Amino acid sequence: MGIRHIPLKNVRITDGFWSPRQRLMTDVTIPYMEKILRDEVPGVEKSHAISNFRMAAGEETGDFYGMVFQDSDVAKWLEAAAYSLALKWDDALSRRVDETVALIGRCQQPDGYLNTYFTVKEPENKWKNLLECHELYCAGHLLEAGVALHEAARKDELLHICVRLADHICGRFEKEDGIPGHQEIEIGLLRLYHATGNIRYRDMALRFLNLRGQDPEWFKKHTPAHPGVHYGGYDILADDTIYNQTDVPVRKQTVARGHAVRQLYMLTAMADAAAETEDTELQAACERLFENITQKQMYVTGAVGASAFHESFTVDYDLPPDRCYGETCAAVAMTFFAHEMLKLRADGRYADLMELELYNGALAGMQQDGKRFFYVNPLAVKIGVSGVAPGYEHVLPQRPPWHACACCPPNLARLIASLGKYLWSEDESTLYSHLLIGSEAITRHGRIRLESAYPWEGKACYTMLDGGKFSLAIRIPHYVQSYNIIVNGQAVQGEMKNGYCYVSRNWQPGDIAKLSFDLSVRRIHADPRVRDCVGKAALARGPLIYCFEETDQKVPVFSLSLLGNADTQEFRPIPGLPDDLIGLRIFRKDKTKQLNGQENQAAVSYALNAIPYFAWSNREKGDMAVWIEGL
Amino acid sequence: MGIRHIPLKNVRITDGFWSPRQRLMTDVTIPYMEKILRDEVPGVEKSHAISNFRMAAGEETGDFYGMVFQDSDVAKWLEAAAYSLALKWDDALSRRVDETVALIGRCQQPDGYLNTYFTVKEPENKWKNLLECHELYCAGHLLEAGVALHEAARKDELLHICVRLADHICGRFEKEDGIPGHQEIEIGLLRLYHATGNIRYRDMALRFLNLRGQDPEWFKKHTPAHPGVHYGGYDILADDTIYNQTDVPVRKQTVARGHAVRQLYMLTAMADAAAETEDTELQAACERLFENITQKQMYVTGAVGASAFHESFTVDYDLPPDRCYGETCAAVAMTFFAHEMLKLRADGRYADLMELELYNGALAGMQQDGKRFFYVNPLAVKIGVSGVAPGYEHVLPQRPPWHACACCPPNLARLIASLGKYLWSEDESTLYSHLLIGSEAITRHGRIRLESAYPWEGKACYTMLDGGKFSLAIRIPHYVQSYNIIVNGQAVQGEMKNGYCYVSRNWQPGDIAKLSFDLSVRRIHADPRVRDCVGKAALARGPLIYCFEETDQKVPVFSLSLLGNADTQEFRPIPGLPDDLIGLRIFRKDKTKQLNGQENQAAVSYALNAIPYFAWSNREKGDMAVWIEGL
Repeated sequence: MGIRHIPLKNVRITDGFWSPRQRLMTDVTIPYMEKILRDEVPGVEKSHAISNFRMAAGEETGDFYGMVFQDSDVAKWLEAAAYSLALKWDDALSRRVDETVALIGRCQQPDGYLNTYFTVKEPENKWKNLLECHELYCAGHLLEAGVALHEAARKDELLHICVRLADHICGRFEKEDGIPGHQEIEIGLLRLYHATGNIRYRDMALRFLNLRGQDPEWFKKHTPAHPGVHYGGYDILADDTIYNQTDVPVRKQTVARGHAVRQLYMLTAMADAAAETEDTELQAACERLFENITQKQMYVTGAVGASAFHESFTVDYDLPPDRCYGETCAAVAMTFFAHEMLKLRADGRYADLMELELYNGALAGMQQDGKRFFYVNPLAVKIGVSGVAPGYEHVLPQRPPWHACACCPPNLARLIASLGKYLWSEDESTLYSHLLIGSEAITRHGRIRLESAYPWEGKACYTMLDGGKFSLAIRIPHYVQSYNIIVNGQAVQGEMKNGYCYVSRNWQPGDIAKLSFDLSVRRIHADPRVRDCVGKAALARGPLIYCFEETDQKVPVFSLSLLGNADTQEFRPIPGLPDDLIGLRIFRKDKTKQLNGQENQAAVSYALNAIPYFAWSNREKGDMAVWIEGL
Repeated sequence: MGIRHIPLKNVRITDGFWSPRQRLMTDVTIPYMEKILRDEVPGVEKSHAISNFRMAAGEETGDFYGMVFQDSDVAKWLEAAAYSLALKWDDALSRRVDETVALIGRCQQPDGYLNTYFTVKEPENKWKNLLECHELYCAGHLLEAGVALHEAARKDELLHICVRLADHICGRFEKEDGIPGHQEIEIGLLRLYHATGNIRYRDMALRFLNLRGQDPEWFKKHTPAHPGVHYGGYDILADDTIYNQTDVPVRKQTVARGHAVRQLYMLTAMADAAAETEDTELQAACERLFENITQKQMYVTGAVGASAFHESFTVDYDLPPDRCYGETCAAVAMTFFAHEMLKLRADGRYADLMELELYNGALAGMQQDGKRFFYVNPLAVKIGVSGVAPGYEHVLPQRPPWHACACCPPNLARLIASLGKYLWSEDESTLYSHLLIGSEAITRHGRIRLESAYPWEGKACYTMLDGGKFSLAIRIPHYVQSYNIIVNGQAVQGEMKNGYCYVSRNWQPGDIAKLSFDLSVRRIHADPRVRDCVGKAALARGPLIYCFEETDQKVPVFSLSLLGNADTQEFRPIPGLPDDLIGLRIFRKDKTKQLNGQENQAAVSYALNAIPYFAWSNREKGDMAVWIEGL
């Protein structure tokens, strides 16, 4: 048996940092998203997604509205709602989920086909434009929702709908060739396979993956000329094979290119399929790409997909902080990808990456109130430039209320609401603890409880509720220089391997293993291959990357300097932010410089105040920077 | 009497640095440009500019080709040819100039109108679209050429044509309102006024300037809807009043905005007009803008107009080195502007700016062979990104053979060929030496000879050929910490005022004043308000800004560091570049860093080699940076 993730239903999160954020999902974000889908929130972009389903079911008249992939908003909400019900049962929500699923069921065609755009608007054009029309993408999300409702909420009606839809897709694409425009169906099919055990879905996912890139001309040959198929505000070139990731077969890929979320959804499916089929060639491709992304194409916050043009990866080390795209969905997708990689190999780098995204890149996408979201997550914002100047139009200094293309909010919601499934894995001999998040888990090695003060303190305590003979493999964060593990009061020397410390013994019920390490502030020096960050430094503490916001400074953000050595003080609370957040403060005295390099005469004394990056843009609008001058 | 520039005809350049470059203009660039105008160079973009004139004269059949302002290429070449004839008489060139002028004369309409596009293609649409159609722009350049031929080559035929054209323009726009789309006619009219003394032309220029911005809606009201007037590949919005510099009256401007060359041509005319009319309000506007540009919107090389979008100024301190637009024409225009400012006030900052542009921003626009030109002058180039990645399409790593829009090469040619007029000024009591360029000048204070080893050595020697009682005001470059002036072997203490050292005496024929100062290497530390350069440094020596090219380095350009103190060695020759260029070398030993901030174990020993920025991209293609990590 390989590594198996402990499923969501066997994990309960009880964490000082994450439990309140999960409650924010169940109590605010997921209900808010539902209201938006039903067009009940005044002043935000119209969604019309539920109405589209009503029209497809013949129960409402009017015109389809929204993106051609508007259906996926409903699917992602249903998936998040499933996790919400698992976290906190709610009769009313359960009823509304059932009603929505029933509505979806009434939209399904006799042959299993299910997509509101093509049912309402262009029934004659089904499956004719895989490149742009996102029927497979919407289907993939619906499959994920169906499995989530089945697994997390014990609701099977959508699963039945999904089986019919998947059978319809298999029936068509087992015979004829097809390449999904926006990858996602592969994930959905694999999840459906895991849930049902039907190998047909796994093989269909593999067929989609294996066809991709065999013929770089495929989309060009199989995409109707405009305006043959209308589909709502979208323009992708069939011959942009890099954007489409169809320039080489997926197993031959060496670097991440093109649309970031598509690339990462594909890698998520590839890693899952590689673990499932023990396909070492597929695994090697995943490892190459993981390496390329994390070593050459990722911001220090975990943001990926640097370019606003086509929401895409660009070239190695092209990571401008102030023009960063870094879509929230891409940070979420990186977490999915790393999580699947952990089924292939227990390597701390994958868990480190999940941690980086969860506490930084992904989490920053959301306002503290759970109602506003960033699509784009820059590492620097300059008021008057960001969102305004050419090349910066996409970089907003504040989270907008909602997006016409509402992919990011539900993606974040389903990640946080289902956080339990990212914490633990097991194999025959070992129980893996990937993240220091307070929780209780039921495993083949017995029940275990983890209490943690992370990310504010480097302390975690594992209590064996049942015990057994196995190794507890605790992932030690990459930045930790030295750590102690004490079992029942006695220091033990675990075996360190690939980022995990393995403590092997015959655990007794009540045994306690305590992990502790230093969480002192780190200065991260920029890789000079990143042109825009040469000579700059950033602050980090534990898993948290810090940033500097204008409201906390006495001098302009972009004139702040970390040069030389200076003591860093920690402080709490940060004015205007929740009490538990730790701020960082450094005192300096600097001379400022002018455009021609001359120094101004008088030195300025000031304190630099940094806050966790995930909490930026929750107070008044102002400049922000992660990287500032420094060595 | 105010300050008067010593005219070109009274100055002869005899300079180790500039004389060869003037010869390059007369012997290579100006003849090459002419061949292109006549479509005689295979493999470069078709010009068709001379053919357009032949068609307008009814001597060739076919269709107009090129930009709507293609005529201006011929005008700028004629202006450059005038200076070329002044530098080195050439019977054949003189004949061809005469033929071209005669051809232009045959295109002129009976009412004085002169523009090939509207004569050939849309005679019914003359003067109907001032915003886009550039009739006034082309006329302005023709006026400049006419005056140049009159003053520098004693040819008056084009001047007569220009008088008729200018009278036609005055006849029309003295009565009705008109705002030039692309400013330039204002410069042309003022030059024609200086050459002829006819105040009508000065007042017409002032009327154009004063009307601008009075009604921000003017272009919107007076521009026909597309496709009412076709004009060849151009798209400007009538309501982009910032681009057009019509949002406020010119006297009320506070910051440089919109299209850079338009802004700077306008400022050149404004400064000239302010000096001419002693208009202190106009002068104050020029001073505000000069201050804004040089202190907040100029690269260290002198490049201005940071944004490729609309070739424009953006906002203060928005100066990304690797996406810099910095059009060669804008650097040339900055020189024009500063030169006119010197008529208002002898302030070393204006001469410093001319020097910065001449030795860096402008000069870098040209290949050493005089045949290839940059339109865009970046401060950093990364192969694989520059010219390729989204947002970097305009940044070419190598000078292309020619441009469809060929504004920059002739602009540089006319600047270098007429360099003599930028060197000296005078008023009743003082002879001003603005630039340390070897030359002989005839002034009201007698003849003077300047010998100089600049920019390689900080030495200059002034010899009075006639003598007289006056102050010799020598501009001391802004970076000079201390200097010596020795007159006839005796140290003298001049009076330092606004960047000029005034040495007053009754000069005798044969008197010699020697200036010397230290030219040691300087580190320029980036202004931290420039987000992209925080923590970076650049090298400079004398007036020259340096850069790092890949071919001279052992480690990647963007990992080079100037951190800490290290001796800088000077070396000659630089492999592959002319022998007189001085290179700079620093030895270092560094550990390199990774994306996550970790240091690689082994330190790398290497030498940093820097070359003068103006000489970049004359060898094999590679990365280049002006700013590198450093303090």
